[in-house]
Amino acid sequence: MKKFILLYGPPGSGKSTLGKQLARRLARFFIDLDEEIVKNAGMEIPQIFARQGEASFRQMEHAQLATLLRDPAIPSSVISLGGGTLLNPDTRVLAESHGQVVVLSAPLEILLERIRRAAPARPLLSDDPAQKLTSLLEARANHYGSFQINIPNTGTARQAINNLQRRLGIFHIKGMGAGYDVMLMKNGLAGIGLLLKERQLDGPVALVSDSNVSPLYASTALQSLQDAGYTASLVSLQAGEMHKTLQSVSLLWDFFLAKGLDRHSTVLALGGGVIGDLAGFAAASYMRGVNWVCLPTTLLAMADASLGGKTGFDLPQGKNLIGAFHPPRLVLADPMTLKSLPERELRAGLAEALKSGLIADRALFDLLIHVSQKPASEQLLPDLLEEIAARSMAVKITVIQADPFEQRQRAALNLGHTLGHAVEIASGFSLLHGEAVAIGLVLATKMAERLGVARRGLTVEIRNTLSGLGLPVDIPAGLSPAEIIKATSVDKKKAAGKPRFVLPVKPGQVQIGVDVPNWQELIFGG
Amino acid sequence: MKKFILLYGPPGSGKSTLGKQLARRLARFFIDLDEEIVKNAGMEIPQIFARQGEASFRQMEHAQLATLLRDPAIPSSVISLGGGTLLNPDTRVLAESHGQVVVLSAPLEILLERIRRAAPARPLLSDDPAQKLTSLLEARANHYGSFQINIPNTGTARQAINNLQRRLGIFHIKGMGAGYDVMLMKNGLAGIGLLLKERQLDGPVALVSDSNVSPLYASTALQSLQDAGYTASLVSLQAGEMHKTLQSVSLLWDFFLAKGLDRHSTVLALGGGVIGDLAGFAAASYMRGVNWVCLPTTLLAMADASLGGKTGFDLPQGKNLIGAFHPPRLVLADPMTLKSLPERELRAGLAEALKSGLIADRALFDLLIHVSQKPASEQLLPDLLEEIAARSMAVKITVIQADPFEQRQRAALNLGHTLGHAVEIASGFSLLHGEAVAIGLVLATKMAERLGVARRGLTVEIRNTLSGLGLPVDIPAGLSPAEIIKATSVDKKKAAGKPRFVLPVKPGQVQIGVDVPNWQELIFGG
Repeated sequence: MKKFILLYGPPGSGKSTLGKQLARRLARFFIDLDEEIVKNAGMEIPQIFARQGEASFRQMEHAQLATLLRDPAIPSSVISLGGGTLLNPDTRVLAESHGQVVVLSAPLEILLERIRRAAPARPLLSDDPAQKLTSLLEARANHYGSFQINIPNTGTARQAINNLQRRLGIFHIKGMGAGYDVMLMKNGLAGIGLLLKERQLDGPVALVSDSNVSPLYASTALQSLQDAGYTASLVSLQAGEMHKTLQSVSLLWDFFLAKGLDRHSTVLALGGGVIGDLAGFAAASYMRGVNWVCLPTTLLAMADASLGGKTGFDLPQGKNLIGAFHPPRLVLADPMTLKSLPERELRAGLAEALKSGLIADRALFDLLIHVSQKPASEQLLPDLLEEIAARSMAVKITVIQADPFEQRQRAALNLGHTLGHAVEIASGFSLLHGEAVAIGLVLATKMAERLGVARRGLTVEIRNTLSGLGLPVDIPAGLSPAEIIKATSVDKKKAAGKPRFVLPVKPGQVQIGVDVPNWQELIFGG
Repeated sequence: MKKFILLYGPPGSGKSTLGKQLARRLARFFIDLDEEIVKNAGMEIPQIFARQGEASFRQMEHAQLATLLRDPAIPSSVISLGGGTLLNPDTRVLAESHGQVVVLSAPLEILLERIRRAAPARPLLSDDPAQKLTSLLEARANHYGSFQINIPNTGTARQAINNLQRRLGIFHIKGMGAGYDVMLMKNGLAGIGLLLKERQLDGPVALVSDSNVSPLYASTALQSLQDAGYTASLVSLQAGEMHKTLQSVSLLWDFFLAKGLDRHSTVLALGGGVIGDLAGFAAASYMRGVNWVCLPTTLLAMADASLGGKTGFDLPQGKNLIGAFHPPRLVLADPMTLKSLPERELRAGLAEALKSGLIADRALFDLLIHVSQKPASEQLLPDLLEEIAARSMAVKITVIQADPFEQRQRAALNLGHTLGHAVEIASGFSLLHGEAVAIGLVLATKMAERLGVARRGLTVEIRNTLSGLGLPVDIPAGLSPAEIIKATSVDKKKAAGKPRFVLPVKPGQVQIGVDVPNWQELIFGG
């Protein structure tokens, strides 16, 4: 398990400054390797250099880092390294086997400016810093360039941290109960047992999955749990939104009881949004609430459903009518699971990603337009999907942190959902959730454009993008307006008996809580 | 609605000091009438007396108090009056029609000591305070004695406030979400509409009750809700613990949907513990949680079940296995509803009260011993029941505030419940919950005494008390040990597969979380 994030880069690249802020955002400890060395050596770094030379200092760095990384008592932390710490090949091997190294970079002038402002003298740059730094950068260009992750730190710290989190796929959600980590981690499923241990979660563990997913991935998760010493049992529900019912929840409660789960046990949800909602609600209500961990295996669940602590199930009268806010203790999305996802489901997830872009990430929106114009066979490449998932997660996390219990801004995430849910129900769930959201997005934009809220042409742009991504954009023939209007009437997000709409203004900006008295006419009136 | 608490009494009785602390405990505003007058008059009270005389000052008090009490924008507050404010009969009528007047008292020496320590000069006591205070107390003895509620303030402020809260029946619970008031209020049911309005709770309101309670009290509550402008509908479930099922919860969800309740609506639970648990859980899970108010109508629900935000229902495998922590927005116990309660249910409630005494209130324990020695016909007098209810509520509120989510101390409240629940289930619910708790208390004490945890003789004392109160104290003939042991095995409070017991040490003190490996032998082994 790579539990450390190691920030590396030339002097002035912002390793300590960003490191502190990143650690705060992730609710982790921050360690400055230089400070640890100074503390142990009892002298400042320029003194060490002067008295003992660079080789000896690199030895001290290696020893100090080894102590930190190998101590099982030290929790997941963000560590800022010295500017040359990993020049020593042994130190590099050590670092890369325990953590994820991130190189920060910036142009010479910015580095120099930061160095001038920094208080302590830099050992290798004491006089004529411009000249010294130039040669240092030249000498180390290949070295810094040889690391996989390089984040430019030239704008605001916030931008650099956002980029870094998206690249690493590591987030942390606060605001509802104890905070929890959200990770997008290749092959993370094989390490789930250790991730549970690290969070001091107890067994017996119930692994909840469905008939599609469990044959593919349940054994990997079970093996990892057993290796970490957990008693774990698998319960596999029938796949599909039509099984997001009270009967399924009831079956889970009985399973938990039969397997002896108590108030300290842990429930794992391995699957798409339906499994997360069902297992999460069963965990929320079992013995008044037990811990759970969400392992989303679909693009849609990674980008949306698994984040934010909403759990629940459908009633015949409407979707998600019964539920609870019950945040998981960890969300681990393993992108390897997307490989086996049917193409139709992957494309359905892209609708939810477009929603995220439309709400708050213009770059994601533009990326999806770009993807929609590629040949279909090139639209679903793994790296592209991972980038889309990470950007969507980042949008959702930002929004729910600002408003965990959906008092206000969080309602933005319902863009396309008020009508999308209605279409989904009216279709008898022959449409996937993401497909229904695609139609809902087009309808909401149409409404917004007719009301003069959205700029002209946005509906066509969104239609073309969704259509290019292989998603439906029209209400299926055979569904009557009356059925859809009826299905809208039990939506949870209404106030005083009326549905409230989220309307797009332009990519990256929406209006929420809009009462549209003549919405039926705007949508169905030709 | 009497929304103010008005503290009154001679100089030095502690009106301001207690008032501030009481207001903090109840999460209300505190207003010092003297300070308001000084602010408005622009001079100190001795100056007003000196320049304008006492009569004029009393006029100013009246005017100032009228302004405060009649302003609908001023929320429920604690107000400290001047030492002679209510000498004016008009002011007294004004005060008593808007608030509850509490007279604080203390012996002359204590009053004098407090006056000496207080900074500002008291207008009527400026020189020879002992002499002046003596004549003031003599002159006002009948006046102060004519108020219904008199609280001695001689020990610690905490003791006086505890007494005062028990007398007024007004508590406030913090620690789980937003705090909420708990009130024991005669005829409060007829004012429930205004109490909801005061808390800015929205309709439509669903009034959940059962087939025993709704014919007696639902119309009072509905009328009050309608008078306050709410749309309210009644749903009446079948009475009895055997209906504390998922089917009942499901029926409530459907009712809420049919009546158009949305995420801002309010659920009212009018009945005993079963109704509170069912309606509370239906509210906790409907649209991921709506507001609810608990109106307990049984002694057991007032003393225990309605307090602390636990909601849920039974599964065939065990009691309360599914549920949620979902604090109500208000608990209003109207002791008038106890009048129609069947004697058997009242007596069952006394078992829960004895539990409270045993956990943390020696005086309540002694009171119940005293009651148990009276003739049966004098055991259930209204004033006595109200005192018992208020003391039990106070114990429970103190415990749950210290540990809202039952991480530790709150487990004390399960005294007698681990085995009580098992006996209740094994009896097929032919025993009432309180009756099963009576048996559970005897068994827990027996275990504690045999282990040397409880002092010798405590089991006999508790047996005799419960028996004297007309409660069962032995496992009913015909219930096999095996059935009870089996029913214990699904208790929620176990850890690592073993039941954890709460054991009494002596009245007012318990041990929690005790693992008793040979518990079966201790109970069933002769």
